[in-house]
Amino acid sequence: MRDILLELHKSEIQGLLDLSTGAKAIRQAYIAQAQGCVQVSEVTYLGFEEVNGDCHVKSGHIDGSEGFVVKIATGFYNNPSQGLASSNGLNLLFCAKTGQTLALLKDEGWLTDIRTGLGGALTTLALARADFSRVLIVGAGLQAEHQARCLQHLSSNPGITFEIWARRPDQAEQTAQRLRSDGIEASAASDLQEACKQADVIITTTPTKTPLVQSSWVAPGTHITAIGADCPGKQELEADLVLRADLCLCDLAAQSLSHGEFQTAAAAGKLSAKTVIPIGAVLSDDHPGRTNDAQITIADLTGLAVQDAAVSLSVYRAAQTGKPNEGTIT
Amino acid sequence: MRDILLELHKSEIQGLLDLSTGAKAIRQAYIAQAQGCVQVSEVTYLGFEEVNGDCHVKSGHIDGSEGFVVKIATGFYNNPSQGLASSNGLNLLFCAKTGQTLALLKDEGWLTDIRTGLGGALTTLALARADFSRVLIVGAGLQAEHQARCLQHLSSNPGITFEIWARRPDQAEQTAQRLRSDGIEASAASDLQEACKQADVIITTTPTKTPLVQSSWVAPGTHITAIGADCPGKQELEADLVLRADLCLCDLAAQSLSHGEFQTAAAAGKLSAKTVIPIGAVLSDDHPGRTNDAQITIADLTGLAVQDAAVSLSVYRAAQTGKPNEGTIT
Repeated sequence: MRDILLELHKSEIQGLLDLSTGAKAIRQAYIAQAQGCVQVSEVTYLGFEEVNGDCHVKSGHIDGSEGFVVKIATGFYNNPSQGLASSNGLNLLFCAKTGQTLALLKDEGWLTDIRTGLGGALTTLALARADFSRVLIVGAGLQAEHQARCLQHLSSNPGITFEIWARRPDQAEQTAQRLRSDGIEASAASDLQEACKQADVIITTTPTKTPLVQSSWVAPGTHITAIGADCPGKQELEADLVLRADLCLCDLAAQSLSHGEFQTAAAAGKLSAKTVIPIGAVLSDDHPGRTNDAQITIADLTGLAVQDAAVSLSVYRAAQTGKPNEGTIT
Repeated sequence: MRDILLELHKSEIQGLLDLSTGAKAIRQAYIAQAQGCVQVSEVTYLGFEEVNGDCHVKSGHIDGSEGFVVKIATGFYNNPSQGLASSNGLNLLFCAKTGQTLALLKDEGWLTDIRTGLGGALTTLALARADFSRVLIVGAGLQAEHQARCLQHLSSNPGITFEIWARRPDQAEQTAQRLRSDGIEASAASDLQEACKQADVIITTTPTKTPLVQSSWVAPGTHITAIGADCPGKQELEADLVLRADLCLCDLAAQSLSHGEFQTAAAAGKLSAKTVIPIGAVLSDDHPGRTNDAQITIADLTGLAVQDAAVSLSVYRAAQTGKPNEGTIT
């Protein structure tokens, strides 16, 4: 660490992360996590109540990989009133053989957004019916767009149509427009109930504490990827829907059961680490995943430090090799 | 965090940290910690057994101060065989009002060494007899030198003499020589027992697991600052000596009692968080500290994240103001 080998800004990082390569890395991270071939620290937290701010630090390493990551993410939610972004972050990549700093990635939180998008897309593709085409995205924020773009990019299915639903219809329409401008077939949904009924896949991306998706609206054969719930109290799916699912999956049971989408079912004693399937086990074929077209499957994602390690390494390697980049989504 | 405001290398940091200013900052950090006016995260750990390496991450903030710090410290103990330093580290300073990255301090662990040296010196000066002059330093490593240099710098006592004892007499002599070359009165001690008996102050800086300083060697009135013990199993002072002390002090009881010098006494139920005095309480005059010249006082230091925050802020402010720098020790 006499010096940091590589320092990259957000725009440089965006130019270096090939989405297909990033997806392969995230797939490996999920599998490694499921097989216990990872090292992950506790997530630590500092809070700054007066200014409505917080800082989370997490670190992780995939066994045998070149580098480990320390990710620092801040959220200061009064910032926009000063014209500043509320969320920021950076990833530091260190050599796992010498401890030297390999890279400082000043990604401003972008890598977290993308690894979440890629993780959601991989999960959706692994669990949805083979013939899925209608995808409903609940929420119209940044992550709604990332889920749509990553899924479209990774899918070999040319006929996917996206519907976007949000509490504010104008925001749903704006998000749909942005997707359309990139050649993705997308429209705003006005009626959440109707949209749920017709969806093959539902991807939820909101911070709601009042469940939005009711069990009676969801048809047999639907797959749901739940992204939004990430702290106690947040829940996007009606509790009955989780109980009704044929298969519940997650990236990390300890997180999903304590503060993710499965927290209510776990508190009621209806779900446990023994009954929730790691997504990595499906990706590695150690678990069959969906076994028929009538099953309802629900996957909850709360995010892994080894996803951060995986995408940081992808960026680092691309910078080292000067590899041309295709399929970047900014 | 669109960009980091300030990035400094070790040599630049060394030129910016005024030791007297740094000591004031460390004093405030100790007092804030004792008064509970701090926020500190758990220390997190990743280990890399195959290459004898580890990484620790800690973060902290002194209430009301401008910035909080995240410190990443690595130790990869096979590195020297490749011509690389084993210990490295960097400090990231963030604005406590916006979360923006104020400074990246690529100090290679130097700030940790110096804040430990300054903390030891402040502690020694607060607890030693007013007329102390003979200082024995046990150990001849980097921290032995920092303790001597910081104590000499902060003390108004012109008559301090240092003796250095180490298992390897040649190393003790080399350290003493380096101190002498900077005008500090220092010599190597050949007999640890004799040196202990004659010392007014003993500062221990070794990683030993076999206690070196025996109780019967320590005269009434001696103050001991114990720096070395920082994990389960490490212990520099005979257990009886800790029990015999009139006053046991530390920077953070939770650390000293679980994995610092007081771990054995705590495990035997002889010391607790109620009986160990925070150094900050003495520095703020909330506790009288030493009350007569016959008392034996022992202070154990395991290091605080708010010390890292304090010295990082000192460097940042010096860089911002372009303030001239006096009393730097590199």
